[in-house]
Amino acid sequence: MDLSISGLKVLVLGGGGFLGTHLVDGLLKSGVSVRVFDRSKPAPTAMRDGLEIFSGNFVDGSGLEAALQGVDLVYHMISTTVPSTSNADPIADVQSNLVGSLRLLQLMQTAKVNRIVYVSSGGIVYGNPHRVPVPETHPLQPLCSYGVVKVAFEHYLHAYTSLHGLVANVLRVSNPYGTHQHHIGVQGVIPTFIDRLKKGEPIEIWGDGSVVRDYIYVDDVVSALLKAGRCMQSGTYNIGSGVGHSLRDVLRILCEQTGFNADVRYMPQRKFDVQRVYLDITKAQQELDWRPQFSLEQGCADYWRLIKAGSEI
Amino acid sequence: MDLSISGLKVLVLGGGGFLGTHLVDGLLKSGVSVRVFDRSKPAPTAMRDGLEIFSGNFVDGSGLEAALQGVDLVYHMISTTVPSTSNADPIADVQSNLVGSLRLLQLMQTAKVNRIVYVSSGGIVYGNPHRVPVPETHPLQPLCSYGVVKVAFEHYLHAYTSLHGLVANVLRVSNPYGTHQHHIGVQGVIPTFIDRLKKGEPIEIWGDGSVVRDYIYVDDVVSALLKAGRCMQSGTYNIGSGVGHSLRDVLRILCEQTGFNADVRYMPQRKFDVQRVYLDITKAQQELDWRPQFSLEQGCADYWRLIKAGSEI
Repeated sequence: MDLSISGLKVLVLGGGGFLGTHLVDGLLKSGVSVRVFDRSKPAPTAMRDGLEIFSGNFVDGSGLEAALQGVDLVYHMISTTVPSTSNADPIADVQSNLVGSLRLLQLMQTAKVNRIVYVSSGGIVYGNPHRVPVPETHPLQPLCSYGVVKVAFEHYLHAYTSLHGLVANVLRVSNPYGTHQHHIGVQGVIPTFIDRLKKGEPIEIWGDGSVVRDYIYVDDVVSALLKAGRCMQSGTYNIGSGVGHSLRDVLRILCEQTGFNADVRYMPQRKFDVQRVYLDITKAQQELDWRPQFSLEQGCADYWRLIKAGSEI
Repeated sequence: MDLSISGLKVLVLGGGGFLGTHLVDGLLKSGVSVRVFDRSKPAPTAMRDGLEIFSGNFVDGSGLEAALQGVDLVYHMISTTVPSTSNADPIADVQSNLVGSLRLLQLMQTAKVNRIVYVSSGGIVYGNPHRVPVPETHPLQPLCSYGVVKVAFEHYLHAYTSLHGLVANVLRVSNPYGTHQHHIGVQGVIPTFIDRLKKGEPIEIWGDGSVVRDYIYVDDVVSALLKAGRCMQSGTYNIGSGVGHSLRDVLRILCEQTGFNADVRYMPQRKFDVQRVYLDITKAQQELDWRPQFSLEQGCADYWRLIKAGSEI
């Protein structure tokens, strides 16, 4: 548990995405040698000491074998779908994400890489939970393909741990927010709301705004990912703030922090939306010695500060 | 719950397999019109009144659209893998069984068929259970690809129930045994043991014979399948005897029933074998009004009687 990850070669799959970008920053700051695998090459300005870039295609596996050479630990944070779109074509979801992830496990075996941290979804895998805060032992009953695929891969990781001695740490991350969260309107309500507030555009809320989620600031997710990377035994952990906030709460806090007023339009509720979920994070606190540092107010304040400072693109 | 299935057109996917053959017999005896979908055409002698045969390929979906026309209820009992072989190629398992099952759901939507009974595995989906007898609410933690795929499809059925009004009944069947159970050595210890006893060949037991399973006679499985077919609301049910027997128990009972002596050879335990599982069948008793009629002794006696009468091929 206390082994450091400095000195290791770490591969980040999806290192150019929202969480990936922040994780790579965090790893480099910790003195870790980082290799990023992603679809496209980053701008030359993004290159830094200690950082290698490998491009390839996770869905067909091209480039992955080369990227795994000499690696000690893999962070897997690639998904080609998001919850709201995944039900449109479950077969494509399985073909790209589940089959792609299984191919990764095979290639890891060949390359003798036996440590992986997998980012699962604390807001999706439990479906509509029987009780909140939700512990890791709660039944898994995802209501969308994105969640079914996450659960299936969690199960494969568990089986590979038993059968092949894989060290797999699964982080069921709740609803993360922060800079570099692109795909406005799809990936996360907080950047979407801020974007609308800034532009003076109406804000659409599906349902009556009572839907409760567990929002976690991206810095807290990165600290959990770093702790999980140090783990030498397999485990599954909820990573969230441990607190639930309604959409109306979130919007109120954002208006307070930014000084904007919201023009809200209520839309019909979506069937696949979970009503109320926030996570019991006791296990991560006890076993990973991790705890979140940002309340929703503090996280939104920091996020808004960075946006004003021009850190957000 | 009390609606009869007579008068319905029922499609049995895998109707030529072990459970499928028995189910088709049971349906025909109940006066139901049955369509079988399977890889190969049966012998002409197998044809009976009320039975239609459609051949095709579940893995690529060919023939399935035609087989679904005019159907009211589907029994899905096709699997191209078994637990012991599924880990050899998880990608192929996903491609054939999970993708094939998702294609079935899509084709059912197109053909406006909204009732399905799915045969899952009560001996596999719970992994090594924390407690026995195992209730349906126990966490799902399969240790082989066969089980991961079963669980993933259960989750898709649950999601389709919520999103599209599908009526899906999942039967987590324990270890069934009876006539027509082919693939000796792969599918079921009881026919394998009987085959070896008859031939005077040594019997191989993986581990020390203390592994405990819930063996259910095929007639009891058929009665559960018929009850589940009458259900007009979705549910998930354990279908087993509710009693655990060790391998040594099974062999002792078989020797008693057949009069043969066993020459046992102990082999190394297999990693993916679950140690001890038998099912809590209270939910099926209460909600399906179903209960097993055969003890292990009675089931083995009946099975042996049928073998001696030449019913087994």
